Amino acid sequence: MFHIFLLALFFFSTSSLSHGAVQDFCVADFMAPEGPAGYSCKMPAKVTVDDFVFTGLGVAGNTSNIIKAAVTPAFATQFPGVNGLGISMARLDIAPGGVVPFHTHPGGSEVLVVIQGSILAGFISSSANTVYLKVLKVGDIMVFPKGLLHFQVNAGGLTAIAFVSFSSPIPGLQILDFALFANDLPSELVEKTTFLDDAQVKKLKAVLGGTG
Amino acid sequence: MFHIFLLALFFFSTSSLSHGAVQDFCVADFMAPEGPAGYSCKMPAKVTVDDFVFTGLGVAGNTSNIIKAAVTPAFATQFPGVNGLGISMARLDIAPGGVVPFHTHPGGSEVLVVIQGSILAGFISSSANTVYLKVLKVGDIMVFPKGLLHFQVNAGGLTAIAFVSFSSPIPGLQILDFALFANDLPSELVEKTTFLDDAQVKKLKAVLGGTG
Amino acid sequence: MFHIFLLALFFFSTSSLSHGAVQDFCVADFMAPEGPAGYSCKMPAKVTVDDFVFTGLGVAGNTSNIIKAAVTPAFATQFPGVNGLGISMARLDIAPGGVVPFHTHPGGSEVLVVIQGSILAGFISSSANTVYLKVLKVGDIMVFPKGLLHFQVNAGGLTAIAFVSFSSPIPGLQILDFALFANDLPSELVEKTTFLDDAQVKKLKAVLGGTG
Amino acid sequence: MFHIFLLALFFFSTSSLSHGAVQDFCVADFMAPEGPAGYSCKMPAKVTVDDFVFTGLGVAGNTSNIIKAAVTPAFATQFPGVNGLGISMARLDIAPGGVVPFHTHPGGSEVLVVIQGSILAGFISSSANTVYLKVLKVGDIMVFPKGLLHFQVNAGGLTAIAFVSFSSPIPGLQILDFALFANDLPSELVEKTTFLDDAQVKKLKAVLGGTG
Amino acid sequence: MFHIFLLALFFFSTSSLSHGAVQDFCVADFMAPEGPAGYSCKMPAKVTVDDFVFTGLGVAGNTSNIIKAAVTPAFATQFPGVNGLGISMARLDIAPGGVVPFHTHPGGSEVLVVIQGSILAGFISSSANTVYLKVLKVGDIMVFPKGLLHFQVNAGGLTAIAFVSFSSPIPGLQILDFALFANDLPSELVEKTTFLDDAQVKKLKAVLGGTG
Amino acid sequence: MFHIFLLALFFFSTSSLSHGAVQDFCVADFMAPEGPAGYSCKMPAKVTVDDFVFTGLGVAGNTSNIIKAAVTPAFATQFPGVNGLGISMARLDIAPGGVVPFHTHPGGSEVLVVIQGSILAGFISSSANTVYLKVLKVGDIMVFPKGLLHFQVNAGGLTAIAFVSFSSPIPGLQILDFALFANDLPSELVEKTTFLDDAQVKKLKAVLGGTG
Repeated sequence: MFHIFLLALFFFSTSSLSHGAVQDFCVADFMAPEGPAGYSCKMPAKVTVDDFVFTGLGVAGNTSNIIKAAVTPAFATQFPGVNGLGISMARLDIAPGGVVPFHTHPGGSEVLVVIQGSILAGFISSSANTVYLKVLKVGDIMVFPKGLLHFQVNAGGLTAIAFVSFSSPIPGLQILDFALFANDLPSELVEKTTFLDDAQVKKLKAVLGGTG
Repeated sequence: MFHIFLLALFFFSTSSLSHGAVQDFCVADFMAPEGPAGYSCKMPAKVTVDDFVFTGLGVAGNTSNIIKAAVTPAFATQFPGVNGLGISMARLDIAPGGVVPFHTHPGGSEVLVVIQGSILAGFISSSANTVYLKVLKVGDIMVFPKGLLHFQVNAGGLTAIAFVSFSSPIPGLQILDFALFANDLPSELVEKTTFLDDAQVKKLKAVLGGTG
Repeated sequence: MFHIFLLALFFFSTSSLSHGAVQDFCVADFMAPEGPAGYSCKMPAKVTVDDFVFTGLGVAGNTSNIIKAAVTPAFATQFPGVNGLGISMARLDIAPGGVVPFHTHPGGSEVLVVIQGSILAGFISSSANTVYLKVLKVGDIMVFPKGLLHFQVNAGGLTAIAFVSFSSPIPGLQILDFALFANDLPSELVEKTTFLDDAQVKKLKAVLGGTG
Repeated sequence: MFHIFLLALFFFSTSSLSHGAVQDFCVADFMAPEGPAGYSCKMPAKVTVDDFVFTGLGVAGNTSNIIKAAVTPAFATQFPGVNGLGISMARLDIAPGGVVPFHTHPGGSEVLVVIQGSILAGFISSSANTVYLKVLKVGDIMVFPKGLLHFQVNAGGLTAIAFVSFSSPIPGLQILDFALFANDLPSELVEKTTFLDDAQVKKLKAVLGGTG
Repeated sequence: MFHIFLLALFFFSTSSLSHGAVQDFCVADFMAPEGPAGYSCKMPAKVTVDDFVFTGLGVAGNTSNIIKAAVTPAFATQFPGVNGLGISMARLDIAPGGVVPFHTHPGGSEVLVVIQGSILAGFISSSANTVYLKVLKVGDIMVFPKGLLHFQVNAGGLTAIAFVSFSSPIPGLQILDFALFANDLPSELVEKTTFLDDAQVKKLKAVLGGTG
Repeated sequence: MFHIFLLALFFFSTSSLSHGAVQDFCVADFMAPEGPAGYSCKMPAKVTVDDFVFTGLGVAGNTSNIIKAAVTPAFATQFPGVNGLGISMARLDIAPGGVVPFHTHPGGSEVLVVIQGSILAGFISSSANTVYLKVLKVGDIMVFPKGLLHFQVNAGGLTAIAFVSFSSPIPGLQILDFALFANDLPSELVEKTTFLDDAQVKKLKAVLGGTG
């Protein structure tokens, strides 16, 4: 009778020495230190299939807000299984008239697939400020290169739904209006560094809860 | 009157010297050499928004085959805009009773989102051959860590549709049965290296067009 | 007598087969294809020390413009010796009252050192829109993490000079105002995706040469 | 008298603040958390030359098993000095008639050098299922690209010995038969996802200790 | 009234679960474990702008030593804000007649900019031992490719000042003379591995505090 | 009858568009441009198993030279199959009394395995100039971290043989004595940047064919 499994036993006999032992994956352990490459790894013995599955994107985001849109992230912070794996996802819900305003992901590129409705999406290149703009139908995909300003707008009469994937487990999200107006950066400084008028800056600071 | 744009002119005055000049992106030029990091870049002047949009995933794959499934890739080879950006996509169509058989992606991790139907998906860890298995419903996502054997099976009575994203523009796809049986690797060698019986190997070689 | 050099001859006898042969460096060849990792390499025999030296940053940039500032890049496109080496530089000249307006570098982090005058520099985090703001004196250095919005403003009565280094040979530069207003992105779409007023958008489009 | 060493003292005066201080190397500390980039670093003061030397590959592996072969790893888990350095090794002993069955290394490429005997080695490409097959003699080396299925078989009458190196300190090892048959993946599912016959699956599950 | 900020609240509501939560940056926490990718991250709530600013390079280094030069580092160990960001800096002060002797940075490439005086800088390629040598004036920059031996010498009558940047937050610094002579490597072994004469080795060991 | 292979045909139908199509591997094409990530890829149709096998390390190097040693490389320049795969090898032959003098590999870490004889190997850390020194017997392995000065010396009465692997397909090799003495770097400058005596420098320049 065969006993090949002796080989298997041999290979992994030392693996109990360490936290994570074998790096097929590194499910995030939110209680341990985080480093530049991501979260520390959970002990493999504590990992279950549910660490690799995320059900939060199955639910529509709440679009009852001023942008009539919602972004639901499944980054490593929410979805520990993607930690260290160079990928993550999010869901977009954009009601009619809704918009995901200009933003960047400092840490990665994005691919978007439309599941319902239609979306006008665009990004701006840094070299010549060229606009790349397209109306996307169900099943169309579009890529937004890393770090560039981009946006998505509902282009139909129906709530649009899309799934977006990123080339990083923690891509980050910097929404332009929040970066400029939703903090205590003094209005005078915002104006000087954006060439926006004082009234415009103060109006948006008021809307977004900014001070200064 | 303002003339800030002088600064813009200054920045990019040297960019006409080279093929790609500024690396916001590197749309694949299939006529130029390919290197370890991907395809060469198209000249920016020739890039249009259609390089960043792929419409081929909006069409159902043809599942009238033995596996009752179809995989439609949007890798850099099909979708030049993702070249060099660390991400790509594909569409899965799995008819009732259909299956995407055991396979690996040598070059990247995968995230799958279910759009229609339900899918039983699983992967095997290399350390302890642990099985991670889950039935996924619409909107559920699951991650398959880089290089590990995994599969997807229709788990309902309806054709299942999913979009999968990869942490590489060219993730590769090695389907286990094709690697073992759809080539000229001698049967004797397949048997020796897999412990499969001779009759089994010859049966699948016949099915898959293998020789030897 | 010693003849160690026989070993040296041995090692490099095959190096004449290829374009670049040994990758101590990969000086940009602007006439050959560019790929995701950068420009192709010049033949080593054609490389001279002048490929590794750039003298263009020794000259003050022209600040006689509306922002009273100039940015002089020494990226791989201008400075072929840094191609593939993960680093590049630029020089900032900011006259009294001058400003380098809000911008990002999609491809890398930046460290700035003040050489003359004083500079008020700031960046905004993406997580909580926190403002990190500091007046920098001669010899002070500040780091701006990859992809985040940041700016520099002259904080004294003297022209400020700084050298900035990047963690990429082609870090890119996306100036916010140019991305929003110096192209043909329709005003209506700018307004929808930034919440800026129509008058504000049209005013800045006029200043920056935008259309639509 | 010279006192250059003052410079040396200066450089490292702050290094006592942290765990690892200077990253010439990062010897694995198995008691601290592991992250996506590998194990935490031992304090440099506790590192000795024995962390960088591994003597376990000097001993023949036990080939008295069904595959008549043994694989002895010196990955970061066994050999802490390679942690974070992008390389590791293992030793293969393959008795006459022995085989290292089909397997993949999810995390890295492999180079093999034959030290004794001869080995028939092969790998399968993912693009066209092409077989790359060769008998290797003493001193021959062969490379197995990252993530692809490959195997090694004794091709002579003498026990073959080889050393293999990997482009990762934790390359992983997924042995096909163990992944398919040495766990609790239900037979029905194995059959559906591999097209193997029920009898074949149950036979190998019995051999390898699988259930289901 | 607008309430866009609800979206902002939504995004970051889960970020309090972990040490660092969002990886815009990873300011070094010197009290937590270090890994191959760098130091662990400080909790974002404890990060201030002073983590991103380093004032130590504004002060002249003490050149009253035998090399008449000083190197003041701002690596991650001294400047926690650059941890994980792929960049760091240092300041060079070289008095008349001074020299930064032959050295390498194992972990990164270097760009140098001259701020005062003039510097004769050089590096040696590994392929053909070619010397790349240049006198640099104020404002000139030169790149030294990763891992290659290089040096800087004062080339004028005035103390030279330069800022150097590296493509790594912890580039390392291996000064040739210290590596050979400032430790307990036996003289006989130094001689055998460098072809230097016994008297020469012992003389420099005496100067640099070496033993053996 | 099964017709699964239709799926296979589908997958690769577009692959004929480009040079390399699928990046399982990227065998070096020495006639096409080289980039920062390595050589361009040969067309897959022209790749054979011999691109992945190198037989040059099966032959003893010629140790009839002053160092009584030989290093035979199998880097990407000699062994095209490793291009882009993050690994390469070389063979060391060190006759009794022989030595591989102090050197660095700018591009990668090294693991050495002793096949015959015994070797005294050592490296010097950059942080504290610590010496890590060990006599290695047959089967022992030692790792030399990236970019650090190291050497190997025959430690027995028999010719020693070792195989070394690198974490890069083009690790580079900078031999200290050749870098200092085998070129036209003026003696005065060598002396100033190494603290070696004039007579010593001129003696070694004469031996190694240096000028100046």
